[in-house]
Amino acid sequence: LDSGDIPAAVRIAARLSNRRLVDIISEAPKETALPFLEALGPVRSARVLSYLLEELAVELLQELNSEFVQEVFIEMEDDEIADIILHLPEDERDKYWALIPNEYKDDVEEIVTYEEESVGAYMEKDFLTGFKDDLVKDAIDMLSKARGEIDNTDYIYVINEDDKLLGVVSVQELAFAARNERLENIMTVKVHVARVNEPAIEAARLMKYRKFKLLPVLDLQDRLVGVMALHEAIDLLSEELAEDFVSISGASAEESYFTPPKDAIKMRLPWMAANVFLNLGAVAVISTFEDTIAQVAILAAFIPMITDMGGNVGIQALSVSIRSIALGEVQIDDVKRVLRKELSIGLINGLALGSLFAIIAYILQREPMIGLIAGIALGFNVIVAGVVGGTIPFLIKKIGKDPAMMTGPVLTTITDITGVTIYLGLSTIFLWQLLA
Amino acid sequence: LDSGDIPAAVRIAARLSNRRLVDIISEAPKETALPFLEALGPVRSARVLSYLLEELAVELLQELNSEFVQEVFIEMEDDEIADIILHLPEDERDKYWALIPNEYKDDVEEIVTYEEESVGAYMEKDFLTGFKDDLVKDAIDMLSKARGEIDNTDYIYVINEDDKLLGVVSVQELAFAARNERLENIMTVKVHVARVNEPAIEAARLMKYRKFKLLPVLDLQDRLVGVMALHEAIDLLSEELAEDFVSISGASAEESYFTPPKDAIKMRLPWMAANVFLNLGAVAVISTFEDTIAQVAILAAFIPMITDMGGNVGIQALSVSIRSIALGEVQIDDVKRVLRKELSIGLINGLALGSLFAIIAYILQREPMIGLIAGIALGFNVIVAGVVGGTIPFLIKKIGKDPAMMTGPVLTTITDITGVTIYLGLSTIFLWQLLA
Repeated sequence: LDSGDIPAAVRIAARLSNRRLVDIISEAPKETALPFLEALGPVRSARVLSYLLEELAVELLQELNSEFVQEVFIEMEDDEIADIILHLPEDERDKYWALIPNEYKDDVEEIVTYEEESVGAYMEKDFLTGFKDDLVKDAIDMLSKARGEIDNTDYIYVINEDDKLLGVVSVQELAFAARNERLENIMTVKVHVARVNEPAIEAARLMKYRKFKLLPVLDLQDRLVGVMALHEAIDLLSEELAEDFVSISGASAEESYFTPPKDAIKMRLPWMAANVFLNLGAVAVISTFEDTIAQVAILAAFIPMITDMGGNVGIQALSVSIRSIALGEVQIDDVKRVLRKELSIGLINGLALGSLFAIIAYILQREPMIGLIAGIALGFNVIVAGVVGGTIPFLIKKIGKDPAMMTGPVLTTITDITGVTIYLGLSTIFLWQLLA
Repeated sequence: LDSGDIPAAVRIAARLSNRRLVDIISEAPKETALPFLEALGPVRSARVLSYLLEELAVELLQELNSEFVQEVFIEMEDDEIADIILHLPEDERDKYWALIPNEYKDDVEEIVTYEEESVGAYMEKDFLTGFKDDLVKDAIDMLSKARGEIDNTDYIYVINEDDKLLGVVSVQELAFAARNERLENIMTVKVHVARVNEPAIEAARLMKYRKFKLLPVLDLQDRLVGVMALHEAIDLLSEELAEDFVSISGASAEESYFTPPKDAIKMRLPWMAANVFLNLGAVAVISTFEDTIAQVAILAAFIPMITDMGGNVGIQALSVSIRSIALGEVQIDDVKRVLRKELSIGLINGLALGSLFAIIAYILQREPMIGLIAGIALGFNVIVAGVVGGTIPFLIKKIGKDPAMMTGPVLTTITDITGVTIYLGLSTIFLWQLLA
């Protein structure tokens, strides 16, 4: 399709849905995507660009010429333009600001100025309103005209002259009601709402939990200013879930494929530098046993095995616990049960892996004592790693902090230290045996 | 509330929503939750148990007496009972099967027999149907009677006498239509469907992507047998996302807080045993350098630092890439860009961390050469770890495999080996300097 013949591609595109075009453009290289968009014209390009992942849309827009961008903006909704503006680098925003049609600028500015993670920044400005004296048949008329123009037509929000929300009428209720009934008499008065300055993720959780399709958004003066849509909530929840896991590794929750390297360096370097200092604990422990290693140098060969296994087992237990907390499968008070579980898993796995390793070490070194000591150290470290890794997220959550941040590097440092301490400690105690 | 006084709690519960009760019971210890449920009676208990996380509901049900469970089952929907049955251990299913009301058994059995991860296992059996000659006003009547009884009332599915799906009418369309119109004339004929035997996750992706609230499910004879609801799709997508991350660590994607220890051991042990063998690479490398270590034992002290930092940097890059793939931010062909990005991040971070470490090692050992060598090894390892960790998921995805499974342990083994090879290799080359 995108094999270079743009006019042919445009002819085929005319028969495809916008969704399908989004797929095609996501997968196409930039060199063909750009002329293809231009050939599609501003109306369809506006649809496609607003469905695209924002980061990708911004990348494409930055390479389109200004006149075309201006035409695309005319065809977009205000919240779609705001999304684009918010994803532009700060120093390029002014340039694109000039391309926004004047009549949209107020609404776009409103959305752009809300705090980054707030409901205001994620809400949509297209929703349907009516007054309490409106008749059902008028509401149905309005609805039928609005379909296709507006996305969020599941509810009509009943407001007064000051934009205060009085109630809500669902399309279902409209369908059942007599056509001459007034909205006032069929509206639901008790309505769940979100505030513009609330964290968007809280609103998203509420929507998922209560199975809401749409949540009205009020400003600080109680005026209805927007709606939060379910698809936005789903995206937010997925991102939050991914952030929990990414931050285990000490990577910033915000880092993604689109983060420029210089920002990624700034995000990762401080944590890694901190990690160097954390690791000095293991350095100190091994330094203490310098004499033992000087006498039996082969002991050093098993150090990475013991630390690596401890780290991996710990990260396994950690991931399972973070997952259970993130998916809401578990209450933080269940830490005792997790402790018991990881202890019994650790005992069996520690025994099994320790024995396996003891046998391997013996075969490699023909030295029963080194095998035994390495096996015991590995086994113990597996137990410690599982228990610490499994319970750490619960303990951090209990003191009210983010349960994932940087736990991976901290955990591997702990298992490194316990592993080498047990291993080299036992080796030193039985040194006379090793030298015999 | 749950401070022991069950009758008082029940009085308060009478005024609370089912959703609110679910919260309360999720957080209550079993000893109070069980008598509380019994006191609530079967009707409300059925609602609360069906909203609870299945694993928790099953745990509670297993401790309730059979007569009460039987009464609860009468009040539940068939798909809710099927969910419970599917979450019971295999050997207890027969016992509960006997408690299911006979008139439900066929439907429950149908859902239970579908493959575990198929659409059939996740679909719901309550949905509205009509015939093509039905009038809009009759459909509205049916809808208004069904509300409150049935969850999925956004659409009426138009079927023929053989249960074949002919079209769909949304409530919105009902609202706009003349009351004497026939469904045939307003229904949408082109309907997206799922098949009972399709993977449920595929249907969930389609629903999220196209923003469907409900997806009709057809059996292999093209009969309409159920619907997939959006909330089910959202849960499936969250679980799948969490699985991607959990499997990085080599933990089974299926393991959760509710996995019994003996199953968790079976899931984790084989991978960890494989990891022991992987780690033999690092053992072999260090063994080769036994003579060097025997002469300068303090070299061993920095081994865990170099391997741990490599592992952590690698896991960071890995998590960021898995996240970008899982959230669909990136196409697998973008691997070149990831490579460039991780290379530039690695160069800067490697230089910075290597220098930091060289200085620390010098201060600790007053030995400029060891500090320099350790710093270089750490710096190189950071570069390798970032590049390998960042690109591995793309390469695995490219050959069509799950990009996360076990990549963590494999990656740390690679970084262990490269780290110690560079470190001890350089040390051996400059041994005369170290001994001087």
